[in-house]
Amino acid sequence: MPRTREPAQANLESLYRIFTIPEAPDSTLGRIDQAISDNLAGFLQEHIVAVERDLVEIERDFSQSRIPEEPMYVSHYTDFLKEKLVSQSVHTASPGFVGHMTSALPYFMLPLSRILTALNQNLVKVETSRAFTPMERQVLGMLHHLIYKREGAFYDQWLQNSRHALGAFCSGGTVANLTALWAARNRLCGPADGFRGIAQEGLPRALQHLDCKGLAVLVSRRGHYSLGKAADVLGIGRDNLVAVDTDERNRIDMASLREQCARLRGEGIRPLALIGVAGTTETGNIDPLDALAALAQELGCHFHVDAAWGGATLLSNNYRRLLKGIERADSVTIDAHKQMYVPMGAGMVLFKDPTALAAIEHHAAYILREGSRDLGSHTLEGSRPGMAMLVHAGLSIIGRKGYEILIDRGIERARRFAQMIAAHSDFELVTEPELNILTYRYNPAWVQRELVAATAEKAARINEVLDKVTETMQKRQRENGRTFVSRTRLAPGRYRGDRITVFRVVLANPLTTDGILSSVIDEQCEMAGQEENRVLLDQIQALCAQSVRLSA
Amino acid sequence: MPRTREPAQANLESLYRIFTIPEAPDSTLGRIDQAISDNLAGFLQEHIVAVERDLVEIERDFSQSRIPEEPMYVSHYTDFLKEKLVSQSVHTASPGFVGHMTSALPYFMLPLSRILTALNQNLVKVETSRAFTPMERQVLGMLHHLIYKREGAFYDQWLQNSRHALGAFCSGGTVANLTALWAARNRLCGPADGFRGIAQEGLPRALQHLDCKGLAVLVSRRGHYSLGKAADVLGIGRDNLVAVDTDERNRIDMASLREQCARLRGEGIRPLALIGVAGTTETGNIDPLDALAALAQELGCHFHVDAAWGGATLLSNNYRRLLKGIERADSVTIDAHKQMYVPMGAGMVLFKDPTALAAIEHHAAYILREGSRDLGSHTLEGSRPGMAMLVHAGLSIIGRKGYEILIDRGIERARRFAQMIAAHSDFELVTEPELNILTYRYNPAWVQRELVAATAEKAARINEVLDKVTETMQKRQRENGRTFVSRTRLAPGRYRGDRITVFRVVLANPLTTDGILSSVIDEQCEMAGQEENRVLLDQIQALCAQSVRLSA
Repeated sequence: MPRTREPAQANLESLYRIFTIPEAPDSTLGRIDQAISDNLAGFLQEHIVAVERDLVEIERDFSQSRIPEEPMYVSHYTDFLKEKLVSQSVHTASPGFVGHMTSALPYFMLPLSRILTALNQNLVKVETSRAFTPMERQVLGMLHHLIYKREGAFYDQWLQNSRHALGAFCSGGTVANLTALWAARNRLCGPADGFRGIAQEGLPRALQHLDCKGLAVLVSRRGHYSLGKAADVLGIGRDNLVAVDTDERNRIDMASLREQCARLRGEGIRPLALIGVAGTTETGNIDPLDALAALAQELGCHFHVDAAWGGATLLSNNYRRLLKGIERADSVTIDAHKQMYVPMGAGMVLFKDPTALAAIEHHAAYILREGSRDLGSHTLEGSRPGMAMLVHAGLSIIGRKGYEILIDRGIERARRFAQMIAAHSDFELVTEPELNILTYRYNPAWVQRELVAATAEKAARINEVLDKVTETMQKRQRENGRTFVSRTRLAPGRYRGDRITVFRVVLANPLTTDGILSSVIDEQCEMAGQEENRVLLDQIQALCAQSVRLSA
Repeated sequence: MPRTREPAQANLESLYRIFTIPEAPDSTLGRIDQAISDNLAGFLQEHIVAVERDLVEIERDFSQSRIPEEPMYVSHYTDFLKEKLVSQSVHTASPGFVGHMTSALPYFMLPLSRILTALNQNLVKVETSRAFTPMERQVLGMLHHLIYKREGAFYDQWLQNSRHALGAFCSGGTVANLTALWAARNRLCGPADGFRGIAQEGLPRALQHLDCKGLAVLVSRRGHYSLGKAADVLGIGRDNLVAVDTDERNRIDMASLREQCARLRGEGIRPLALIGVAGTTETGNIDPLDALAALAQELGCHFHVDAAWGGATLLSNNYRRLLKGIERADSVTIDAHKQMYVPMGAGMVLFKDPTALAAIEHHAAYILREGSRDLGSHTLEGSRPGMAMLVHAGLSIIGRKGYEILIDRGIERARRFAQMIAAHSDFELVTEPELNILTYRYNPAWVQRELVAATAEKAARINEVLDKVTETMQKRQRENGRTFVSRTRLAPGRYRGDRITVFRVVLANPLTTDGILSSVIDEQCEMAGQEENRVLLDQIQALCAQSVRLSA
């Protein structure tokens, strides 16, 4: 990086100037600003995934551990960024990028984000956020209404109620899930009969008070990994995050869940919360929320729904029914930076009971004074930016009906892609899309036939090789940089619980066309014919021939 | 808000258009973008705090709980924002806003933030962040070097090491402190002798394994309120967050600390961590870090330094010595959105031992695979934006020497303001600035004389009335909207431990001049003469006269 060669003592005047805004639009900074916009426009209009350069090579550009001594011209720095960072980023907005939950953003998010940065409000307290505080409360209220559909009088009473909060805005679903379980834990172990509550006395004493050996959280095997972190952080331990078996469609098996509950009771462990997943991260399936709500009620425990991905489906009057029962949840996680098309960093957890967050309320002498309107008294995080504004913008500009179209088209697109895969003899659809996520793998017709007839052992060996094929293809496709799918490991029932590696596709980008989806498949077929995969497929053939000889 | 009256079925084409960028700079969105820049420029150039409008009134603009059904023109929405939000925000960048830790931002942060939003990278995994991942690693490495000054070979080995991370980037100091204590807790209670570790088995079993009744965290009474949240979340309980007495300069009293440690030992409670504060939130003081490091070593416990505020002082070769001993800390919290002038949402925790974060490492099948470069396997948060880029930008463009000037001037400015207050007969300097934070109150010369001679009881009653004066003035000054100081409650030694209310001033904005500081004092003097405060001061006079009569 070229650095300015200034005298040892940097010029004070020029340093102050960086804190003021340029007076004229044709000032140096104004020009740089424009150049950045143009450069980004170029990047965003190229509908391809970033060109692959070896990460080890990229790392060399970011290996210096010393903070530079001398200041540097903004223009030199932006040149550096354009060359070394922007060009080496992932084009998450590309319509061919269908592997993860990060999608294109509506363009209006760019100018509106500028407001956020320029105002640099801090939502922890009203003194540094003013109108942003009632705005965030409104966003939480709107999401609460989306889930719980309470009457107008309810929101008149609670939406702007300074002593309470209908939910907590946070950086993402992980903190949202943690906040939900934190509040649930503290409510179950609240002050009573001389016990001053878990917040004060800690978990070991809380267990003594409740006369039990542990607290458990139950969720299906498809539960998000953030729940494991939460069980760890909250001190209940990952052993007590019980992973319940799922049915053929990746939904929690209620009979297994009841068995697990009975087992825990026998061990003196109390269920703290049941968690329903509304849009599993890997397969996009939705748990039977009504049945979970009923069981939670029966057990007298908290019912949380992790709808980080699927929550936005509530915006569609056509598919809202898929989440039936969510209105009975004590708390719900929704990420606006997923299917609500808001930039990264916009998670929320909503609580049915408007006083539920009292269980984690906290105060300090200089802020969050009792009775203040400060939102910081009900959040895990402290200082926070005004991201809620971008959720407000999305809801206002796109509107419920606009979101409905986006949601509906995503689900329909996923169904069409599933049909394309099912119709192709060399691919195997592993999970059907319930929302807009599906999984599949390359599995040539002749191997599929072999698998049907194979013994358990042989099938396992064939699947092992197919796993390598899937992994190789996924990596190579990412490197080719035209389209991108992700991969994960699942244990579909048809393979007797063996875990297999699959392609995972998330269809949330409104710009992804059927033509692009065809090209994803075409590219994978093409790769199947390449040396590295041919070698693997030959291995399968050898395996089959061998067993034929053995059985002959 | 005016809404577009479109047919019930919103036009699909127009919906897709919002996901694409405008082709021409003179397109509608292009013009809106420019208008926002201009409007913000107007807001940012007005050097006053936002005009006060009653919050209850503002809340009415954000009281609707229904998500709007119909889409809305972006131009209508931005008009709404300008009128109802931007104009009702707090001008945190105003040089007269000296009450909180949110300051002006260098202007270059605005165009650079645009890159962040447009690229919308997700740092949880390399597949959605590419070059942003090595860049974040570099930022963590640079901060690590700022604190620990390890040799080049150390950083060659660890900075870009895919299996480890020198720290965790997070949304702010609260999550940073929580991450530090989480890692410390899991390390102390790691797997050993058949115990599979606290992450797996939970806190109650960990205590059994360690054969103790609880884990304690010790910090001075000036410790940040986030530590209380951490003690609650981690399950150790707020009772076990021990608030240690401070000396006259708000620094932890080492004798009291040793006493508390002895008491805990007697109760079978094991010290998990000692925390040193480097820049207390209320008074900007720094604990004796070297002494704390020595004691932590003696006790065999974790030593964490909360340098969320003061950490940036390390960038000044002139004042770095104030934090001596920080290089012995096992972990250090630094917020870049404080004295490093980065927009809200940039906290970090650094660990001396490059393998320390292994204690909280986690993996999943679809991301964070073992051996991947994904930073998400070592953070509390999941999906995260690429905020590290703005820290990288600040360090590169301002440079260490630039930051040094900013830090030095802030400290010098605070000293001058302290002198101004000390020289004024009607003000009382409550805490001297060690860094750039100080506290004081309006206390007329004649009341100061009465306080010197007063009995404990009388002094307490006088202080109660003075508290009302301070509170009234602070609220009125905020409402006047020209300058802003915050307030808190402290118990300075001179009042026998009575807590008094004080003005709190944070001098981090480089644009705050001595003239502005004079006007803060002038405005407060003026308010002292107003009815509401005259009534209060009369009460003090009556109190004094009464006791004269009583003693006569």
